[in-house]
Amino acid sequence: MASIQARTESALGRWLPAPDVAPQRLHQAMRYAVLGGGKRVRPLLCHATGELADARPEHLDAAACAVELIHAYSLVHDDLPAMDNDVLRRGKPTCHVEYDEPTALLVGDALQALAFQLSSEHPLGDDAAAQLDMVRLLAQASGSRGMVGGQALDLAAVGTTLSPEELEFMHIHKTGALIRTAVLLGARCGTRLSGDQIAHLDHFAKVAGLLFQVVDDLLDSESTTATLGKTAGKDAMQNKPTYVTVLGTVRTRELAAELQRQARSALAPFGDGAQRLLDLTDFIVARKF
Amino acid sequence: MASIQARTESALGRWLPAPDVAPQRLHQAMRYAVLGGGKRVRPLLCHATGELADARPEHLDAAACAVELIHAYSLVHDDLPAMDNDVLRRGKPTCHVEYDEPTALLVGDALQALAFQLSSEHPLGDDAAAQLDMVRLLAQASGSRGMVGGQALDLAAVGTTLSPEELEFMHIHKTGALIRTAVLLGARCGTRLSGDQIAHLDHFAKVAGLLFQVVDDLLDSESTTATLGKTAGKDAMQNKPTYVTVLGTVRTRELAAELQRQARSALAPFGDGAQRLLDLTDFIVARKF
Repeated sequence: MASIQARTESALGRWLPAPDVAPQRLHQAMRYAVLGGGKRVRPLLCHATGELADARPEHLDAAACAVELIHAYSLVHDDLPAMDNDVLRRGKPTCHVEYDEPTALLVGDALQALAFQLSSEHPLGDDAAAQLDMVRLLAQASGSRGMVGGQALDLAAVGTTLSPEELEFMHIHKTGALIRTAVLLGARCGTRLSGDQIAHLDHFAKVAGLLFQVVDDLLDSESTTATLGKTAGKDAMQNKPTYVTVLGTVRTRELAAELQRQARSALAPFGDGAQRLLDLTDFIVARKF
Repeated sequence: MASIQARTESALGRWLPAPDVAPQRLHQAMRYAVLGGGKRVRPLLCHATGELADARPEHLDAAACAVELIHAYSLVHDDLPAMDNDVLRRGKPTCHVEYDEPTALLVGDALQALAFQLSSEHPLGDDAAAQLDMVRLLAQASGSRGMVGGQALDLAAVGTTLSPEELEFMHIHKTGALIRTAVLLGARCGTRLSGDQIAHLDHFAKVAGLLFQVVDDLLDSESTTATLGKTAGKDAMQNKPTYVTVLGTVRTRELAAELQRQARSALAPFGDGAQRLLDLTDFIVARKF
């Protein structure tokens, strides 16, 4: 896991514009927002799935970094004063605090463009038509019927009560879409997996995405700002419905255990080959931030 | 020209998510920001170039709309309070005034993703590898070494003096990159043009992009808010260097005439086939908003 994280950090560092290239301040802020932090859960999922698919590591690097850049941009925009107005991320001042608000807005915009540049410029496999469809998948998962749509639902939910089904719908978009894409792109960087096997992995990814969010809600309500590296208790403070507020802590823990079982069973057909994805599932549950 | 504008409006209306699809408010705001206004200069350039290249109109629609969605998102983000803080665009309240600031931020993000979805989902020609390179071109022109980079330079220039060369460098990025891409994508939707011919068109596009900006600066300083449909005199008010402040009105007019001549001469090798591009050049100069 540490070696994939290091590999991702180095690939991101290589593909982000150098800090001395004009406009320097923008490029420095883009690097600040992306490098030196983050668990790299999406790249880890992408690489672990790609291993199952017999994909080439350098193709996986490009796919994994494209997904991570979309994730990184969404955090920068989420933290803006007009959105969550947060000052701390990954234990550092957020981008608009370290730089300024207009720069952070442009950083997010430029990181999104860079994600699509990466995924169209570097080979993700040997077939251009398949790669074009992978770019489409990334765009769809990032847009108004994916991640950004989930953020809009999240905004609209402030101060309201949601049913568990509505909460799930929101999270399937907000965090789920991109986590699924990380897995699907990993699978499609290779050619070894059948349509049925990819469908199993897609189901795994959907469950893993929800599990990630359920654990996130538990951490937000139970951990400290120092441990999380971002403001703890933010959801309650902002009056946002979470699994903890909708189901209570006990049932949220039960849900996490149930999702962990479902994730394991979705991977069962792959036997030992899925060990790294199993480890990642455990990592998602056991993580402290 | 009117028929291409109508065709673009209808294609955009078809490709933007329907207003009754969840999240409805976001989708309504996306449609508000894109439809019912705009000169559609970039789609016009894309179609006129595509005609020279013998491209199929439906391929040009996808390319033209992808470029226009990038342009539309950039206007929404540009108008935000953290940026230009403008309340009027195309004769209507700006997106964050009509909706709200977080929605406008997400509208921009989602429109950018939609541009890349469109350009990867719909055929732009018959060759997937060529299309992948067209997506790359769009991403590069939109990002930190293209349009967003130009906006960062624009921000940094507030309150400073620029040389004519520095001003040109800024505009080549801020407006020029996307206008060039509209022309290049149009050319590459077809297969009839040689590399040399595409290089001529690229030179034309670079000149046309600058011409567009020079005329924009003249309009901003000389026209009225009612005619422009956006706040007039904004550059002076925000203490931004423009061609008018750097060169004065007389020399700016001379520059416009010189660029118009250069644009015409870049098109000379195409003879009558370039009539629509010539008409567009005149339109860029004669426009009132």
